[in-house]
Amino acid sequence: MPWDDTQARTALRAMFDAAVASADPRRVLAAFLPERPSGRVVVVGAGKSAAVMASALEDAWPDVPMAGIVVTRYGHAVPTRKIEVLEASHPVPDANSELGARRVLAAVEGLSADDLVIALMSGGASALLELPAPGLTLADASRVNRALLASGAAIGEMNAVRKHLSAIKGGRLAAAARPARVFTLAISDVPGDDPAVIGSGPTVPDASTWAEVRAIAAHYGLALPLTDGPETPKAHEIDADIRMIATPAMALDAAAAAARAHGLTPLILGDALEGESRELGTAMAGIAHSVRSHGHPLLPPCVLLSGGETTVTIGQGPAGRGGRNTAFLLGLAVALRGAPGIWALAGDTDGIDGTEDAAGAIVTPSTLTRARELGLDPRAVLSAHDSYGLFDAVGDLVRTGPTLTNVNDLRAVLVAPV
Amino acid sequence: MPWDDTQARTALRAMFDAAVASADPRRVLAAFLPERPSGRVVVVGAGKSAAVMASALEDAWPDVPMAGIVVTRYGHAVPTRKIEVLEASHPVPDANSELGARRVLAAVEGLSADDLVIALMSGGASALLELPAPGLTLADASRVNRALLASGAAIGEMNAVRKHLSAIKGGRLAAAARPARVFTLAISDVPGDDPAVIGSGPTVPDASTWAEVRAIAAHYGLALPLTDGPETPKAHEIDADIRMIATPAMALDAAAAAARAHGLTPLILGDALEGESRELGTAMAGIAHSVRSHGHPLLPPCVLLSGGETTVTIGQGPAGRGGRNTAFLLGLAVALRGAPGIWALAGDTDGIDGTEDAAGAIVTPSTLTRARELGLDPRAVLSAHDSYGLFDAVGDLVRTGPTLTNVNDLRAVLVAPV
Repeated sequence: MPWDDTQARTALRAMFDAAVASADPRRVLAAFLPERPSGRVVVVGAGKSAAVMASALEDAWPDVPMAGIVVTRYGHAVPTRKIEVLEASHPVPDANSELGARRVLAAVEGLSADDLVIALMSGGASALLELPAPGLTLADASRVNRALLASGAAIGEMNAVRKHLSAIKGGRLAAAARPARVFTLAISDVPGDDPAVIGSGPTVPDASTWAEVRAIAAHYGLALPLTDGPETPKAHEIDADIRMIATPAMALDAAAAAARAHGLTPLILGDALEGESRELGTAMAGIAHSVRSHGHPLLPPCVLLSGGETTVTIGQGPAGRGGRNTAFLLGLAVALRGAPGIWALAGDTDGIDGTEDAAGAIVTPSTLTRARELGLDPRAVLSAHDSYGLFDAVGDLVRTGPTLTNVNDLRAVLVAPV
Repeated sequence: MPWDDTQARTALRAMFDAAVASADPRRVLAAFLPERPSGRVVVVGAGKSAAVMASALEDAWPDVPMAGIVVTRYGHAVPTRKIEVLEASHPVPDANSELGARRVLAAVEGLSADDLVIALMSGGASALLELPAPGLTLADASRVNRALLASGAAIGEMNAVRKHLSAIKGGRLAAAARPARVFTLAISDVPGDDPAVIGSGPTVPDASTWAEVRAIAAHYGLALPLTDGPETPKAHEIDADIRMIATPAMALDAAAAAARAHGLTPLILGDALEGESRELGTAMAGIAHSVRSHGHPLLPPCVLLSGGETTVTIGQGPAGRGGRNTAFLLGLAVALRGAPGIWALAGDTDGIDGTEDAAGAIVTPSTLTRARELGLDPRAVLSAHDSYGLFDAVGDLVRTGPTLTNVNDLRAVLVAPV
């Protein structure tokens, strides 16, 4: 049976809302907590979700005495009762990032083996907790960072350098908390969900060494302000008890369940699809066309789900407004050429697609027609990187406000029978 | 159980060979023929496979008297006994394209209702059969073509103009053959397998009108050398009995069967995936990573299959050697970062990836390592569009020679357990 516009939009929005809900610490954090401890509980953490995670922890253990401090991005604080919330700058660290890191390290000093440290980590933590190694300044750290980004070094090599030039990253926070037990709850916004990458892993052992850092510096011609010092903690030196409370894959599973509830067969294509946004739109259009023409990779009614973070490369010419989700959607719409029975939603689970005030948007079979009726040329808009403007004009932006969590983007392409 | 390199390469090559075999007229044409006719059989046709299709038809009906002429690309002739083969230029038509079209039209003149015309159509036919409408020259036609390509007109609009300015396209060949029955056997290299698009459909009714052509010309500011004349034949005027003997979707089905025979679960993602080659490689790497990490969209051992024709956009700087399949593969390899247990093959079923002497290439978990050992920087090679050079250097080009058929590209990404 053909689907109508309202039915398709409702199903897509339900999938997106389910994905966001699956990553909301207020809903999911409690289930991942360890047994209630007998000693003190010290809570530390950083990231865009740090405050809301702290609040969820307070609610989950209302009778447990706890104290501590978490650092979140400006505007991301929520009220807490016992755990202090400090705001700092992201993506470029500021003085509060350093103050926050010092206060977090101070909070875990002098604990005993009976005490429990709970570390609450989420995306953005690397900039929000930035304490250079002794003798270095924030300016040194940012100079090294710029040189690394320009060097062509692989991401693993860059992280090895960063961790060795930091007083808190690469497991050093966990080392400072010894002999207390450290339990980490994390929200992943990185491909592969590697906890060592989230916030550069302050509570995660680091396998890289100073010798490797020196070799990387030599190989890429980097002048490092420090080439030796205390080694990062290795796996035999610190415990790493880490639970992922929300990941892109869990969000896709939640969206898939919502799809089934709306009578759609979900196909999860991947939780970390990358590349140029509009080109992924073209590829997804090809898969959707195949569903329609050949019943491959599956039969309609169905939905193609994917997560991860695409990129928008701005070329020559004026750059318009438009995040990676609206760019994906406009690329998809142009390639679909108004094919009947195909709708799509793409949005950032943090509620902000790029710098705009929308999480994403919805494509319908009439998106191109409606845009042209308003005098917009979809291909020209795509080249001018103003996909946000087009979806704003046709009234199909998806607005949620900041969700205070982030498990990257959710893309859903719904193919109904026609 | 982990797969070894030979096992994976063998399975991938078997899939590619099965895809090519599925599109070989010598293997498949006979099964699509109608009942043997009582009257004369006149064979006409054009395309890169025209000669080999003619030869296959002669072999299938050795005792049936037949005559006719087909036009193929220079170098694509094969020996025939009864059907004449003329070679012409592709993609830019030459005098032989016009001569061929005149001879094809002459061959179907003066037939009776008892006679059967068999039209053999394949990719490239549009350039190989080019006869401008009366009063126009080949130069007029190519000037209109250039203006159309620069105008921003949609492909459907361009085809409407082209068909009305032609004496053979848009069903005019079938009209010329009346009252004889016209039976078309076609090999599709176009998305959607629309016979009206293959060679601009000389035997297929055309719904577009001169009034539409004039409106298109006015809208895009095109100065047409002709704005009225005989209408293209409509659906009620000519029969269109058309059989697709080979399509990208059939080739994918054949590759899927070969995959199963090698113990792999195939997933066909689509027969017409388009977009920038290296970006599709990035997207496929994301899906392959997800197979490995999460068992989505399916469990290993499996293979992700897709067809269609991607594009390579050459930017600033020197352009190296490299077709769209090797560009796809290098984009994939860079995004896979040497992930164990993932192999891939991509190739053009016509045996020629772009202008090079290879059909495509194979990616293995060690592709990047082996390239770096030879002093090649895979990312730099990708930016310089010299993917052919890299796969040549590591010895992983796939060479088949021209296959004399074309159902676009086959891409296979094999994910084995590790």
